[in-house]
Amino acid sequence: MRHDHVLTAKQFSRADIEAVLDRAADFDRPTGDTRHTDSLLGLLFFEPSTRTKMSFEAAIKRLGGDVLDMGSVDSSSVTKGESLADTVRVIEGYADALVLRHPQQGAAKMASEFVDVPVINAGDGAGHHPTQTLLDLYSIRENAGLDDLTIGIMGDLKYGRTVHSLAQALTNFDATQHFVSPESLALPPEVRYDLDEAGAAVEEHTELAGVLPELDVLYVTRIQRERFPDENEYRAVASAYGIDRSMLEDAKDDLSVMHPLPRVDEIDPAIDDTDHATYFDQAHNGVPVRMALLDSLL
Amino acid sequence: MRHDHVLTAKQFSRADIEAVLDRAADFDRPTGDTRHTDSLLGLLFFEPSTRTKMSFEAAIKRLGGDVLDMGSVDSSSVTKGESLADTVRVIEGYADALVLRHPQQGAAKMASEFVDVPVINAGDGAGHHPTQTLLDLYSIRENAGLDDLTIGIMGDLKYGRTVHSLAQALTNFDATQHFVSPESLALPPEVRYDLDEAGAAVEEHTELAGVLPELDVLYVTRIQRERFPDENEYRAVASAYGIDRSMLEDAKDDLSVMHPLPRVDEIDPAIDDTDHATYFDQAHNGVPVRMALLDSLL
Amino acid sequence: MRHDHVLTAKQFSRADIEAVLDRAADFDRPTGDTRHTDSLLGLLFFEPSTRTKMSFEAAIKRLGGDVLDMGSVDSSSVTKGESLADTVRVIEGYADALVLRHPQQGAAKMASEFVDVPVINAGDGAGHHPTQTLLDLYSIRENAGLDDLTIGIMGDLKYGRTVHSLAQALTNFDATQHFVSPESLALPPEVRYDLDEAGAAVEEHTELAGVLPELDVLYVTRIQRERFPDENEYRAVASAYGIDRSMLEDAKDDLSVMHPLPRVDEIDPAIDDTDHATYFDQAHNGVPVRMALLDSLL
Repeated sequence: MRHDHVLTAKQFSRADIEAVLDRAADFDRPTGDTRHTDSLLGLLFFEPSTRTKMSFEAAIKRLGGDVLDMGSVDSSSVTKGESLADTVRVIEGYADALVLRHPQQGAAKMASEFVDVPVINAGDGAGHHPTQTLLDLYSIRENAGLDDLTIGIMGDLKYGRTVHSLAQALTNFDATQHFVSPESLALPPEVRYDLDEAGAAVEEHTELAGVLPELDVLYVTRIQRERFPDENEYRAVASAYGIDRSMLEDAKDDLSVMHPLPRVDEIDPAIDDTDHATYFDQAHNGVPVRMALLDSLL
Repeated sequence: MRHDHVLTAKQFSRADIEAVLDRAADFDRPTGDTRHTDSLLGLLFFEPSTRTKMSFEAAIKRLGGDVLDMGSVDSSSVTKGESLADTVRVIEGYADALVLRHPQQGAAKMASEFVDVPVINAGDGAGHHPTQTLLDLYSIRENAGLDDLTIGIMGDLKYGRTVHSLAQALTNFDATQHFVSPESLALPPEVRYDLDEAGAAVEEHTELAGVLPELDVLYVTRIQRERFPDENEYRAVASAYGIDRSMLEDAKDDLSVMHPLPRVDEIDPAIDDTDHATYFDQAHNGVPVRMALLDSLL
Repeated sequence: MRHDHVLTAKQFSRADIEAVLDRAADFDRPTGDTRHTDSLLGLLFFEPSTRTKMSFEAAIKRLGGDVLDMGSVDSSSVTKGESLADTVRVIEGYADALVLRHPQQGAAKMASEFVDVPVINAGDGAGHHPTQTLLDLYSIRENAGLDDLTIGIMGDLKYGRTVHSLAQALTNFDATQHFVSPESLALPPEVRYDLDEAGAAVEEHTELAGVLPELDVLYVTRIQRERFPDENEYRAVASAYGIDRSMLEDAKDDLSVMHPLPRVDEIDPAIDDTDHATYFDQAHNGVPVRMALLDSLL
């Protein structure tokens, strides 16, 4: 993938994914000695981020390189009315690759058309978030394996770019995907269409209870308050699509509970101390996976 | 102290303090060659800071390491409702130690209970600020010595975490402490109780003039405007507990004037050019002292 | 220039300029091996900046050093009422040189009087921006040569510090300068006076068309909306002092169009794909030029 752009999870073949995950496993031990001491990674975050930004920064620094951080939009020339196309054309002269988070869907793809250095999409509105998908796949492979997998994906399936990218990527493997959400937040038709076209084994549910006992992995996502005009309606939905410790009595002993974080109320903190909880490890996997990706691009 | 948390100045023994100050003296010359090239220091500042944050950053970089800066709260996942416990559990996977400033008293201690990497308290509301104390002690030792010391501590003694930590730490040494403040900003009873329990020689005053001639060190702190409902009352108090050049005629020739900075009006800039002014050196000592502390933790 | 302050373009002799530009040409290839691995550059940006800040950061990192970034004013002690003189005296203890952008004219000069490390002016209100001038000169030398040069400078000539510094610096070379602006935004009398004193060949115009065919370089600047009380008046002026592709039919084939960026509407994006467009290269030249400057100061 040297010098490629990374725009969507759709662009990854099974071989691409496995190569990155294998390399990440090397970097997951502190013995990885590949050095990119001359590399500067441009960070362009037009929206708040903690874990994506900090794990990219940790990844390039652990590879011996460094970052150039545009900083918050308020402290940049964007406040003077500069276009995204101009901003990325300037910064490509300073950095060896660009990591872009932007509220507008398609922003990373547009940016990639204006520059020669690799652009890595770190989230474009309701669009894509392919590096999150890579670390999700890495975590699934560590805990349950990617083949012969039964996974439940629960919460906001309509707007969640994380979910769309993960579901798409899992079609490269022998996985059965159960989607659990209120009807108002079900998978968009175009995503469902893509999954069907890829021949994926997919079922949709409005309740978790019936399918929970079969699952190897339960991937929970946050339901955003701002999707609901009414606070009471939000509370009802949020509590119906959260999990607590007692519900896990019906699950397999080795069920992995995942979450892209940040969580609000979807996962009871009492689950944190159980072997089911893999969401913090999942977040930590962002570093070796992004090291592997950067190592393949730079 | 390897792999310890640093939460309050109370945790330091005299031996701990002297070990760090001796090591800091090594780092105060540009010959310190201890290298932590693989270390990443996580910076989590939930409140504004210039000197604490920048001197931690300078310290780890001069040791050969680097930082991972969470950035301002506005640009992080905290805006999405993430708890502090979750934030630190995520970032401990990226960094080798965490430096935390937080408006809430007890925040660092709470954080330390959730993570395995060292947590360094860089100020928790009206609570503690132990690394400020170490650099204050280093500066006192350089200028007046820590034994047979007569120190005046003036200003906001009620809310000033810097003052509480320093007073506590000085009980490890043979120091006489004179506290000078308006009655409304006097030492809190629990701090006074701790000092008495430790057998410290302590006197409280409402005016500086009577005690000034005896002092080896005068430690001035900022009185915050927001403590006073009335602007006129604030002005009266602020000017009564500031110093100017003429007042220093009654002081010892080698009196050191210290201040944790930033200052507003408490110290007349005309004092900056005298030998009494040690507050800028004091701020600069933050780098070697924090180098020594990090070197002992990492 | 070792250990000098860099405050205005006026301080550069022709020999100074040529020495920096020659060194920059060395750094413009990835072979520059001068290393400043122990250098920390303090970044104090009291106003938004993308390209100046990021290219200074890229420059010191490509030299093997690192930065200490004060961050935005909101997250620093400035919010507690600290004076600029105090802030720079503290930070000089952490860093080996300071880069300062400040809204107040004269801020860098004032700061330089309080510290011993070099202060580099990265823009002081309507005052100076000498490192922008160095990269402008580098770009002009690359594209048209600095001697026997005919240059047009268009847009906001009254408030533009970039223009004032460049015009001044060009008096060191055999250049004819044509200034094009509405009367309300013409060169200030004191700048015009300085140019005349230096014996510069200067002409002022209110329209571009008459002089365009003679130009080797056309340097366009942004007209700021906030200079005009009336939106319609702004639009009229902005469109009269912008350029589009058709206008360039009257220009020399090898005319270089320059702009300090960010642009808003002054240069039609259709020009980006022509050989006239040198503004992105110009921005990129900020890295080798600032590497050369830092290498000469540190």
